[in-house]
Amino acid sequence: MKFLRYGEQGEEKPGLLDSEGHIRDLSGKVSDLSGAVLADLAALKDIDVSSLPIVSGNPRLGPCVTGTGKFMCIGLNYSDHAAETGATVPSEPVLFMKATSAICGPNDPIIVPRGSEKTDWEVELGVVIGKAGKYIAEDDAMSHVAGFCTINDVSERAFQAEREGQWTKGKSCDNFGQTGPWLVTPDEAGDYDNLKMWCKVNGKTMQDGSTATMVYKVPFLIHYLSQFFTLHPGDIISTGTPPGVGLGMKPPQFLKAGDVVELGIEGLGEQRQDVITDPA
Amino acid sequence: MKFLRYGEQGEEKPGLLDSEGHIRDLSGKVSDLSGAVLADLAALKDIDVSSLPIVSGNPRLGPCVTGTGKFMCIGLNYSDHAAETGATVPSEPVLFMKATSAICGPNDPIIVPRGSEKTDWEVELGVVIGKAGKYIAEDDAMSHVAGFCTINDVSERAFQAEREGQWTKGKSCDNFGQTGPWLVTPDEAGDYDNLKMWCKVNGKTMQDGSTATMVYKVPFLIHYLSQFFTLHPGDIISTGTPPGVGLGMKPPQFLKAGDVVELGIEGLGEQRQDVITDPA
Repeated sequence: MKFLRYGEQGEEKPGLLDSEGHIRDLSGKVSDLSGAVLADLAALKDIDVSSLPIVSGNPRLGPCVTGTGKFMCIGLNYSDHAAETGATVPSEPVLFMKATSAICGPNDPIIVPRGSEKTDWEVELGVVIGKAGKYIAEDDAMSHVAGFCTINDVSERAFQAEREGQWTKGKSCDNFGQTGPWLVTPDEAGDYDNLKMWCKVNGKTMQDGSTATMVYKVPFLIHYLSQFFTLHPGDIISTGTPPGVGLGMKPPQFLKAGDVVELGIEGLGEQRQDVITDPA
Repeated sequence: MKFLRYGEQGEEKPGLLDSEGHIRDLSGKVSDLSGAVLADLAALKDIDVSSLPIVSGNPRLGPCVTGTGKFMCIGLNYSDHAAETGATVPSEPVLFMKATSAICGPNDPIIVPRGSEKTDWEVELGVVIGKAGKYIAEDDAMSHVAGFCTINDVSERAFQAEREGQWTKGKSCDNFGQTGPWLVTPDEAGDYDNLKMWCKVNGKTMQDGSTATMVYKVPFLIHYLSQFFTLHPGDIISTGTPPGVGLGMKPPQFLKAGDVVELGIEGLGEQRQDVITDPA
């Protein structure tokens, strides 16, 4: 199933996408796509979709999950991407955190923060935790997954690498985490280890990869991260980006107001973002 | 005023400490110490404290704030601490994130995670944001503060520094962020820039410092961080630790099950933690 959240920022309702592409209102069935609801999405499998109200018009989509406590990202998890940034594949996963305040809807604008000259794109496979766990065995890891989604791990490279250590500064700006459109349940996502993924800037393909070239795979990442802390429902793991980011171009190329970014992952849906200067 | 939260984990109620040291139940006045409540703690100033029910017994204290989206920490922000870890004072603040799932009550145990051999203590001044803001001017920064608290920024040094980059792995384990006992409003906290702070392990004083030797001061930190993202009510800034951590001992000394850690900041209250092995 494809779950989503629609409505204005902070007022989103849960919904799902029916087989004809209509948004159906799920708010009569569940409170929101968070917490205990994520732990039991399977319970919604037998729902009579045709009985759910069709949402009219073309509402804004919010992030496809809410109540996220940890927005975990894996760095340098595609060997070719590591190479393009001048790094080597790490001997174990590199973890950094994005602020959860960076999470926004899939088509919300990319906001270039004040002073930024190196705002960059990164299409990534997002894994949403459904069931809490700690010290999770690798072969039990997928039972903790609520679903998958497309994420744009927007990054400011100077804030990330040239401002006194720790990447989180360049990863956590407002609207630096477009999440969605859909939370796709594992049964419908297919082989998460072999999904095409792409990112275009102003219509030109910049990233054209596949989750097949991911170094540390989803079950291992869940196992690995759960050695450090409990994973909770709503937590997101953004699993790294394939080659083709702006930092890796020769010369490097970064986003400016007026640009349009489009990205997607096979079966998980597409995003489209206008790049704007910060209205704040 | 001194605000607090009491009750079992996940079921805490808001309260305050009266002038005689009794906990008063504040749940009839506010829903919890989060969000909009933090933005207007001043509205509670004229409350008739004697009219609030006294809480009997000796309940567990929870973290003194909830709804925290960002648990931001400043690294190497005391010049002597930087020296003891072999680092120099950074040219601008070093930011790292602790997972919000690490936040716990002030007297909840320190859980040594599986495989840890280098679990360490760090007494820190916590600043809790009350009012949202972005690009905050330094001279307006204190208007965004709900209050101050004591924090133990528990750290696993091997996870932090020896496991492929980015400190967050060693900072985010469950129960690695004891927060409280009290959220002390700025009018009562006094000169936050000149507060004694200490940490004892098994009765022996290990840290004996003062916020006076902090390199980057609270108003600047708020200004600085708000250049990267919006600060929201409930967000916590843990402002760094003075000298005397286990990593800085010769030879280094780390926590093991059975140890007792006590720490505090002048006027902000004390914490006491048993160190235990992970029951998970």
